[in-house]
Amino acid sequence: MQFDSLDDISAFCRDLPVGDVHAADVATLRQQSLTKPPGSLGRLEELAIWLARWQRREIPQLDRVTIAVFAGNHGIAARGVSAYPQAVTEQMVANFASGGAAINQIAKLAGAGLRVVPIELDRPTRDFTVAPAMDVDEFLGAVDIGYRTVPPDSDLLAVGEMGIANTTTAATLCAALLGGGAARWAGRGTGVDDAGLARKRAAIDAALGFHRAISGDPLAVAAALGGRELAAIAGAILAARRHHIPVLLDGFVATAAVVPLARLQAGILDHCRAGHVSAESGHRALLGELGLDPLLDLNMRLGEASGAGVAILLLRAALACHGGMATFSEAGVSGAGK
Amino acid sequence: MQFDSLDDISAFCRDLPVGDVHAADVATLRQQSLTKPPGSLGRLEELAIWLARWQRREIPQLDRVTIAVFAGNHGIAARGVSAYPQAVTEQMVANFASGGAAINQIAKLAGAGLRVVPIELDRPTRDFTVAPAMDVDEFLGAVDIGYRTVPPDSDLLAVGEMGIANTTTAATLCAALLGGGAARWAGRGTGVDDAGLARKRAAIDAALGFHRAISGDPLAVAAALGGRELAAIAGAILAARRHHIPVLLDGFVATAAVVPLARLQAGILDHCRAGHVSAESGHRALLGELGLDPLLDLNMRLGEASGAGVAILLLRAALACHGGMATFSEAGVSGAGK
Repeated sequence: MQFDSLDDISAFCRDLPVGDVHAADVATLRQQSLTKPPGSLGRLEELAIWLARWQRREIPQLDRVTIAVFAGNHGIAARGVSAYPQAVTEQMVANFASGGAAINQIAKLAGAGLRVVPIELDRPTRDFTVAPAMDVDEFLGAVDIGYRTVPPDSDLLAVGEMGIANTTTAATLCAALLGGGAARWAGRGTGVDDAGLARKRAAIDAALGFHRAISGDPLAVAAALGGRELAAIAGAILAARRHHIPVLLDGFVATAAVVPLARLQAGILDHCRAGHVSAESGHRALLGELGLDPLLDLNMRLGEASGAGVAILLLRAALACHGGMATFSEAGVSGAGK
Repeated sequence: MQFDSLDDISAFCRDLPVGDVHAADVATLRQQSLTKPPGSLGRLEELAIWLARWQRREIPQLDRVTIAVFAGNHGIAARGVSAYPQAVTEQMVANFASGGAAINQIAKLAGAGLRVVPIELDRPTRDFTVAPAMDVDEFLGAVDIGYRTVPPDSDLLAVGEMGIANTTTAATLCAALLGGGAARWAGRGTGVDDAGLARKRAAIDAALGFHRAISGDPLAVAAALGGRELAAIAGAILAARRHHIPVLLDGFVATAAVVPLARLQAGILDHCRAGHVSAESGHRALLGELGLDPLLDLNMRLGEASGAGVAILLLRAALACHGGMATFSEAGVSGAGK
């Protein structure tokens, strides 16, 4: 196991790699020399410099891009909080394996390798309105799976998830760690109706009540109110940081999965960007809480890393310009005011 | 010439192809059958259906994508409204030809053919603070060049421009056709300083004063206050409509170029989408006036079709999902509430 206790994770987070600031500076100078008004490529410039920092080279590359999709099942599904039956989690994992899902098409287009990791789908977490979702060992096991899923030589990691009822889990985790209650964080997920939404809110409030004595360690909250695929995402984020791999987060659930880490340590998400803001109602507020400015806003709400996967295309555009454009002197183009 | 008079253009606009509504309906049904909650791919679904309508087939393709970049020079540049000297227009055309500009890299990444069309760079339009920028024949000639640039068998057209001082031209055109004066439409373009911005506003106000007697035909305004590359963009948009080719507009200048058409005829932009909203200050308001919801918001302000070019990647993602995903029945995935 990568981490033998919650304290091991906390210790890891207190001693994080910070990327290569010199590489970022050199990449910034390169951007300023290219044949365009300074800053005119906007976020494409910022993304190239961010990739340079974390890949620790002036001209970053995207030769080995990994998309990791973690899947888990949730005891809370029994409370009728989703529009779909729990069996769909496993059915969609089979769909990923046979290449029929959205993320399969997006991964192929984006030139990314797809790793789908189902985690004990036959053993859902416990219904957290009446018990801890996971004990500490279960939580650490899922974190470990996520950590080990990341190839250390990846140039980029995009993380996403699949898990019927997991927007309820994500909303509960946000409410417990960021405040605001069910009303702030519960949305319609895959498309639950009004009655289902009411059950979802009731489940979140019940969970907050049952676990009100938990406090202090955000990781303890992540075990008691989280899910296996969310824990795995947190583990993958830590592995990426360890190996200086930049990360694109997907939607509401994938972002909620990193909230416990963000509560532990400032700067823990410096190697991460939000691939998109989803249509799930709590996501925009959550990104605001974490200081993340999403790259895309396409009204998507599918999960399975689909939004992060599309955002890989923007990183490719950023690097195509960063590495391929001529400089003012190479092209014989006059600068401003000349 | 495609159009022998301004009236010819108006007549063309009164009898527009409307796309294939049946193909759009069939594409909508296809989207509803794919393994995802209905609507969960958001704008990617809408884009696939829009492409189906204009390409007139259930499964659209992007095999022949054309990016057209029109370049022109502007008499108004003599008023000191730009951060760059007018020679840069021609220098950048040379940079496009040798493959060193941002759009060269983006076109290659997006799998698009790039057509760069400089229009009489040695003959700038007249300074429109003291004369009409173009007479009607000059305007029609530029429209014709744009019209003939579009390969009729294109699956998609992305349009952009290059022209030192042309954000001043674009702002003037917007002010004349949409109201609001220089304050609403003048931005910093390639990065003009405060003194330059003041000169820009003064030039726009002077032009509006000089041409205050012009009214009625928006095309007459486009001739008197526009630019050759803007006229060519309008021509390209008309050719695309004639050949049922969907269009991605680039930034502020490319969008301003279609305002005269939009003032002529409701629905003229149904085959167009805004590739992005640029950082140029008037663009967001302009898109709002035209009812266009941009696909990207990346703080770009380069022009040369760079924002529209990046947006091609989103269309590819939309079609990868639309054409490649399994249906619920193919994949054995349960629907909602089953």
